[in-house]
Amino acid sequence: MEDIKNRILDKIKPSDEEREHLTKVADELMYKIDCITFKVGLTGVKTQLVGSAARGTWISGTHDLDIFIMFPETTSREDLESYGLSVGRQIAKEAQEWDEHYAEHPYVKMKYGGFDVDLVPCYSVSSASCILSAVDRTPFHNEFIKAHLNGREDDVLLLKQFMKGTGVYGSELKTEGFSGYLTELLVINYGSFEKVLEAASEWRPGLLLDLMEHGAQKFDDPLVVIDPTDPRRNVAAALSLDKFCTFIDVSRSFLEKPDETMFFASAEPAISDAELLDRMDLRGTSLVAIVFKTPDVVDDIFYPQFAKMEHSIVPMLEKNEFTVLKAGKWSGEDSVVFLELLSKNLPDVKRHRGPPVWVRAHAEAFRAKYVDNPDAYSLTIQDGFYVAEIPRKHTDAVVFLESEVGGCSLGKHISKSVREGFTVLEGEQILDLKDEGLRSFLNGWL
Amino acid sequence: MEDIKNRILDKIKPSDEEREHLTKVADELMYKIDCITFKVGLTGVKTQLVGSAARGTWISGTHDLDIFIMFPETTSREDLESYGLSVGRQIAKEAQEWDEHYAEHPYVKMKYGGFDVDLVPCYSVSSASCILSAVDRTPFHNEFIKAHLNGREDDVLLLKQFMKGTGVYGSELKTEGFSGYLTELLVINYGSFEKVLEAASEWRPGLLLDLMEHGAQKFDDPLVVIDPTDPRRNVAAALSLDKFCTFIDVSRSFLEKPDETMFFASAEPAISDAELLDRMDLRGTSLVAIVFKTPDVVDDIFYPQFAKMEHSIVPMLEKNEFTVLKAGKWSGEDSVVFLELLSKNLPDVKRHRGPPVWVRAHAEAFRAKYVDNPDAYSLTIQDGFYVAEIPRKHTDAVVFLESEVGGCSLGKHISKSVREGFTVLEGEQILDLKDEGLRSFLNGWL
Repeated sequence: MEDIKNRILDKIKPSDEEREHLTKVADELMYKIDCITFKVGLTGVKTQLVGSAARGTWISGTHDLDIFIMFPETTSREDLESYGLSVGRQIAKEAQEWDEHYAEHPYVKMKYGGFDVDLVPCYSVSSASCILSAVDRTPFHNEFIKAHLNGREDDVLLLKQFMKGTGVYGSELKTEGFSGYLTELLVINYGSFEKVLEAASEWRPGLLLDLMEHGAQKFDDPLVVIDPTDPRRNVAAALSLDKFCTFIDVSRSFLEKPDETMFFASAEPAISDAELLDRMDLRGTSLVAIVFKTPDVVDDIFYPQFAKMEHSIVPMLEKNEFTVLKAGKWSGEDSVVFLELLSKNLPDVKRHRGPPVWVRAHAEAFRAKYVDNPDAYSLTIQDGFYVAEIPRKHTDAVVFLESEVGGCSLGKHISKSVREGFTVLEGEQILDLKDEGLRSFLNGWL
Repeated sequence: MEDIKNRILDKIKPSDEEREHLTKVADELMYKIDCITFKVGLTGVKTQLVGSAARGTWISGTHDLDIFIMFPETTSREDLESYGLSVGRQIAKEAQEWDEHYAEHPYVKMKYGGFDVDLVPCYSVSSASCILSAVDRTPFHNEFIKAHLNGREDDVLLLKQFMKGTGVYGSELKTEGFSGYLTELLVINYGSFEKVLEAASEWRPGLLLDLMEHGAQKFDDPLVVIDPTDPRRNVAAALSLDKFCTFIDVSRSFLEKPDETMFFASAEPAISDAELLDRMDLRGTSLVAIVFKTPDVVDDIFYPQFAKMEHSIVPMLEKNEFTVLKAGKWSGEDSVVFLELLSKNLPDVKRHRGPPVWVRAHAEAFRAKYVDNPDAYSLTIQDGFYVAEIPRKHTDAVVFLESEVGGCSLGKHISKSVREGFTVLEGEQILDLKDEGLRSFLNGWL
């Protein structure tokens, strides 16, 4: 175990030179910001390096610098935004490239000295429970981690890399995994990389970690980690049940049989046409793909809509008696929902169970509808209930999806994209999808 | 309504000549029996005509005569049986044809004077609650009906014929419908043919009719009619839920729109090869038939076993994920269980849901079984549960049934017949079944 940890740390721990270089660039940027704010006559503005770079928990080779420009609470929102942007733009003059982004406030992103730098304006508030905007919390996280990590940066690095390798790292809505701050809190709470894994091996959904003993809040998430700096917030709110369970699973596996390769995910190779045909043939199921152009919105808006789309389509198919064995989705230039069906075809006849014969009002209405109806095949009584055999409306899943996908509950951006056009591919037609990333996804999924 | 009733009665009510002829033959037989018992020196033996012939509730053209030879209670069972048979055999000398049957006691059946005559020995007991064998009850039924029917024989005739025409008449285990005695009790209870139908339109399962107010007994049948002569017996015990409901259904239909044709069932014509192929094609399902030689036992033994067979096979298929749309059965020289399946084929891949990831002991056992198992396709986590994709054992319903029917829970006689050989036919192969009765059944069933 110690051998493995050391070999991993050799690869991911920043060298002294890397640290010195980072400190140099960060200091240079903060000095420049201070000069600008001084020159414009802004008083009480502070600058602070935050995030993993500030805490010594960044993985070697990742080059993110988050610098916060902290305005006094008395600053108006308009001033904060205009001064924040103006400072950012002046610094950006010396950047390799830059642009402006819009979160709760606008901010400037740039390439500077080999780093990806975010210059984020925020309010300097007295405590995290008094924040005026979501980013105001970040400096408090910084303080808390620096005060409590006590030299366990290596454990955080190992945990982050282990989570990356096993696909559960990242709190974006695409990944629904663990955030960097959450890995740091887990190490503080349990004491070390291994102790986190040992604890996770015994985790159950509904687990509550309340480091500062703020008292339990009501959260309905698989893992609840009360933010030490703000008891109203669950740091693990973005973590999905399946990523939570995957971490339990990989923790047990690793402890049982430590394996260096688990720290580095190996992408599945792209599946070839021949192999894909073989795979479909071997399974004997019907594979269907719904393809549409990926709307031009950020991941955090797109992925929840994409998940909602899958969760609308599957029950719609099941309601029409198609058996969905599994569903999956992939997104690149195009987005694709894959559905594996027991069979894409259903028989023409459908059994429709009516009311019990003895419930007279319902029974008579049902009978009137189906007896002597030339379109109905038969009306019988089974176990006391009327059963009508009627022609099935939807017998082909592809035809059904072509007509119904547009009408099911979709998010705004996907709905627009689907209205502009989508296709439903089935079986061999899926070979038309050539994207390497998609073929790699299919290799793992099938 | 009155018109219809009169036209039906014209067809089914015995004429004066028919009545006179029946009385003559019955009297002649009873006289002969009395002579024989007198000659042998049997004292205290009485003869009695029972059943519908005795009550004036037989349908014209049915020629059943049930004559009971009633021995004193003090007679030993051996004597009753030997004397009963001996009397029957002597009468049978003058019969067109005859043979011996074995129910609780042996008895003689014969063709005599154009009638099907049963000569049944029984005990003459003081009340139906003291019976020594099941048949001893019959003379009490006779007495009760004669005492309470009060000239409503026509209503009984109409009700019997209506039940015949709608397929709910007959209390044998093949039919699971209404017995003759039950139709008589219904007329006595409700007052007339129409009043029975009006009441039935509102029937619900669990209905209790207790004509003599014996007090409720615990019976778990859809209809409970306490035998006026024996409170321990439910006269409707043989009636199935579906025949009970069918009678509710046809009663409502007839009252809503009286229709003479409902009194006479028209058998479905035998379906032709071409029409059967068309029908299968139109439905788009898989039709499967399990064929075996009908064992040589009476219906009341065979039909419960046949029903049990159907009720064993359907869940066995469903447990293996074949979707059974409906099941039916027909019996002639061969017996056939028909199964309509959504599809006779299932994909090679099967999803096997394991325990939740957080239930450690189960999770680890499941994981150990399927991870790194070269025969398993994959192990994933979905909604917190492990899901293994594994090869499906049974992908073809025909092959599955060929190997498994012999092993499922079958009654003694069917089990023996199946062990001697059975075949499973599918789709077009079913055209090999040429029996007219079977083809008529299929016409109605499909």
